[in-house]
Amino acid sequence: MAQKTALIVYAHQSPASFNAAARDVAVQALTKQGYKVLVSDLYAMNFKASATAEDIKGDLKNPEHFIYNNEMMVAWQDGRLSDDIAEEQHKLEQAELVIFQFPLYWFSIPAIMKGWIDRVLTQGFAFTLQKMYDNGIFKAKKAILSFTTGGTESMFKPDGVHGDINVPLCVQHSTLHFLG
Amino acid sequence: MAQKTALIVYAHQSPASFNAAARDVAVQALTKQGYKVLVSDLYAMNFKASATAEDIKGDLKNPEHFIYNNEMMVAWQDGRLSDDIAEEQHKLEQAELVIFQFPLYWFSIPAIMKGWIDRVLTQGFAFTLQKMYDNGIFKAKKAILSFTTGGTESMFKPDGVHGDINVPLCVQHSTLHFLG
Repeated sequence: MAQKTALIVYAHQSPASFNAAARDVAVQALTKQGYKVLVSDLYAMNFKASATAEDIKGDLKNPEHFIYNNEMMVAWQDGRLSDDIAEEQHKLEQAELVIFQFPLYWFSIPAIMKGWIDRVLTQGFAFTLQKMYDNGIFKAKKAILSFTTGGTESMFKPDGVHGDINVPLCVQHSTLHFLG
Repeated sequence: MAQKTALIVYAHQSPASFNAAARDVAVQALTKQGYKVLVSDLYAMNFKASATAEDIKGDLKNPEHFIYNNEMMVAWQDGRLSDDIAEEQHKLEQAELVIFQFPLYWFSIPAIMKGWIDRVLTQGFAFTLQKMYDNGIFKAKKAILSFTTGGTESMFKPDGVHGDINVPLCVQHSTLHFLG
């Protein structure tokens, strides 16, 4: 039986944090279950958050009127995405399970994780206009949102959603759902 | 009568974009109405999106267990926030009106704008545990979300929300509200 793979997209600055502990517990538990576990430690990687033309190698299709999504879609087709994005996409392709581990910032994911969503989930790779929602490219994947909230009563709540195009959307949607 | 001030927090990579045109129209209209208009052009500023220890000058309160919000609150009290954050806070203090101008990325603000929210709205400066929601520090301010959506039917929709602590929250909340 082929080994299953999990990807943990992790966004906390401190190895001493509860988020780090939650990540470590997840790595241990999944490894025990036979998973190969990949971790994208976004702050440690100094992961670029902003969607810019630097994400594309070579010439832009329309440098006079830069539209990020369009340029990225073409660059993905041509294999001209920046190395850091290509690497995250490669991890994501392998993963049957994706866990987003983060502290809640302003009722949502931290900017560095929003940057992962904005930059890695390229049209063509992660969805097409035909392949989204119930027909999504990643519908076989599962995602878990695992986050902590501020204040003295830090909480750790997991949730599972189906992994079609709703995976990234639910980073927002489920977060808000959690919050009522 | 004192001159009124507006701040436009703007997040598009291209001067040829519809977002840029919307920004320019807003600048013109507000100037005509007697506003002093400040613009934070986040991509042009190469605005740092990620919340890191570099946002704090001098020693950390608890370097062994870095908690961004706590460190930022103390740094704000002591005047030790990084210059880029202090500058944005200074703009925000002056502004009676704040306009967020952006293209929608994954049903939300682009990461670079989430970075502005995460980094600029420091506890103490933007809210306290006593001063939030209806009792918010910025309740006299007004905010407008102005954004474009992808696809061929690009849309431009403005909305207004009250400017207490709901200002930043509504960047998320109103966006989702817009979307149903």
